[in-house]
Amino acid sequence: MARRRLFTPGPTEVPWQVREKMSRPLIHHRTDEYRKIQGETIEGLQWLMRTKNPVLLLTCSGTGAMEASLVNLTRPGDQVLVTVVGKFSNRWKEIAEAYGLDVVAVEARWGDPVSPRDVAAALDANPDVKIVFTTHAETSTGVLQDVKTMTQLAHKHGALIVVDAITSLCAEEVETDAWGLDVVIGGAQKGVMIPPGLAFLTVSDAAREGMERAGHPVYYFDLVRALKSYEQGDTPWTPGIASVVGLHESLAMLKAEGLENVKARHAANARATRAAVQALGLELLASAPANCTTPVVFGEGRADTVRKHLNDVYGLRVAGGQAQLKGKIVRIGHLGHYFEADMLMLMSAFESTLKDLGMVDSVGRGVEAMFGEYHQK
Amino acid sequence: MARRRLFTPGPTEVPWQVREKMSRPLIHHRTDEYRKIQGETIEGLQWLMRTKNPVLLLTCSGTGAMEASLVNLTRPGDQVLVTVVGKFSNRWKEIAEAYGLDVVAVEARWGDPVSPRDVAAALDANPDVKIVFTTHAETSTGVLQDVKTMTQLAHKHGALIVVDAITSLCAEEVETDAWGLDVVIGGAQKGVMIPPGLAFLTVSDAAREGMERAGHPVYYFDLVRALKSYEQGDTPWTPGIASVVGLHESLAMLKAEGLENVKARHAANARATRAAVQALGLELLASAPANCTTPVVFGEGRADTVRKHLNDVYGLRVAGGQAQLKGKIVRIGHLGHYFEADMLMLMSAFESTLKDLGMVDSVGRGVEAMFGEYHQK
Repeated sequence: MARRRLFTPGPTEVPWQVREKMSRPLIHHRTDEYRKIQGETIEGLQWLMRTKNPVLLLTCSGTGAMEASLVNLTRPGDQVLVTVVGKFSNRWKEIAEAYGLDVVAVEARWGDPVSPRDVAAALDANPDVKIVFTTHAETSTGVLQDVKTMTQLAHKHGALIVVDAITSLCAEEVETDAWGLDVVIGGAQKGVMIPPGLAFLTVSDAAREGMERAGHPVYYFDLVRALKSYEQGDTPWTPGIASVVGLHESLAMLKAEGLENVKARHAANARATRAAVQALGLELLASAPANCTTPVVFGEGRADTVRKHLNDVYGLRVAGGQAQLKGKIVRIGHLGHYFEADMLMLMSAFESTLKDLGMVDSVGRGVEAMFGEYHQK
Repeated sequence: MARRRLFTPGPTEVPWQVREKMSRPLIHHRTDEYRKIQGETIEGLQWLMRTKNPVLLLTCSGTGAMEASLVNLTRPGDQVLVTVVGKFSNRWKEIAEAYGLDVVAVEARWGDPVSPRDVAAALDANPDVKIVFTTHAETSTGVLQDVKTMTQLAHKHGALIVVDAITSLCAEEVETDAWGLDVVIGGAQKGVMIPPGLAFLTVSDAAREGMERAGHPVYYFDLVRALKSYEQGDTPWTPGIASVVGLHESLAMLKAEGLENVKARHAANARATRAAVQALGLELLASAPANCTTPVVFGEGRADTVRKHLNDVYGLRVAGGQAQLKGKIVRIGHLGHYFEADMLMLMSAFESTLKDLGMVDSVGRGVEAMFGEYHQK
């Protein structure tokens, strides 16, 4: 049985340094020792998210943080705009509908981002839109959206903007303060390389004001209460202590690498993967590719055969398609703790898989293209 | 600096076997390997909670699971009964009020349980009560409530009963099916000895029917959706993979010990601690003591002095009082992975602390009483 590794868009591999820290005896959360770790972790997230705004830690998956932002910023009947370009951005629509909001959905083909022009037109046609809920990198399609421009449009309209950056953090520019993002949401099992179970979000002054006027019942996800606890260096409920200890370590690793280097590494991994896939004559799904994951289009049925073979024979797990893309794509994850050697390993096993399955005649073109991309002058 | 250990009612010490399993490379959740672990973990929870009902895993703290049960079982304006005997049982009242319910609160002095007679009278006076939300063991006061009798009263009234057993599981009889409990809630960092960040709850057939008729907006905590995923061996959102892996291991440890032995061990630890505290001439807070934690009453200010000294000099962390009991009590935790030698260590250091602070003349009476309780014929 082959040694197994994850090349999935989430969960991503958790570095041994992080797992080692998380495996130490638990410390109690109402202690100075824990408060120091939590405080430094929040500072680390502010560094990562490029913001001076408060960053709230929530014990839940990323979906919980999405719901928390929406519940705390809206009242029933409020008009909001969502951008739907895949499974996870569609979740904004689902949550907004669950809470009885008036939803303006701007959609694009799965594989494309929404056009800022379409967003501008939708805002013009819907003057009551109070908040734009959008997705920076759509995990199900590997597409990057132009959040910076959407923010300008939203603010010009007098609306707030809430950004799901769960899959873009570490891999893309996320300039919370410079772009004026009101809420930015991140999650555990992605670029910050810890196991799932923790989410976090930033809150701008304008978002905080909005939260104080919001109008749904809420308790566990009450962000006004969480902000009050935050000011005391605390959380309203027992925090995910081990997750925070792990995040403290992973942020230290990212800081040691340097944020520009982290982003450049993700960009290089993504470019090299795309170059290799194209050299193999395969089709890329995303017209505006993000650096988190590279979806590769296969004929119906073949995607899952490739994925299964790569896992069973070579021990490397990549993701498949979801919802309307089920069975049609393979998603190669390169968000997180992946370096050139890891990607070369993945690509050589990927090519070997295609050769095993009779889908290519020889092995090496993908690796050659990948090497060329990493080492171009 | 002394070697540190937790004797807190939660988080409790995480056994090294559990930490070791949790520190292994992460597995992906959409795999047969993970589904097998999750399936066995759910079977283990059914064994622990004495039920054939579905057990849902939620990625949140215990408070999130409390809210989930309430949101999924009620409509705005519904009349519900809550029992308020301390900080955590009061949370039922807070959540119910946040959701606009008509709350009938049966209260008792912090240190006592509510009397089933008071519950019966409140139900008689309020024929519209649809659900009773109660707390089995109240962590803030160490009090055990008579859930079995309350269940009979609730059912006779035609109401469902939802039980917060977060602190009672492993330490007390929790007979979900035999008593007919509709929803039973458990949490990670308590008797099941894993780090905080996971909660779970059982759903009876009647509760499931109630959930299908409920009427609040909900998404992350949508238990009808979670039940559908459950039937596929799945969860609606990314689960706390490492937490489930840890819980799988801790349940295996509890099973190897045997459920009756686990409960008898907790009962013995609690009896021995109470005997020692009384031998030292100190006052116990709880009139109906639970086996999870033993709160000891001190004069104003002295409780925190004792707690700090025991931590700083001997490395053993116990909990203090909360809300109206702040500064007035010390809570010795013995829920989780604590055996006779652990309790003897705690008690000898506790006595030594009292001697250091001039509160007793000699050391040994507490340990003697504790030993006597463990070894009585």
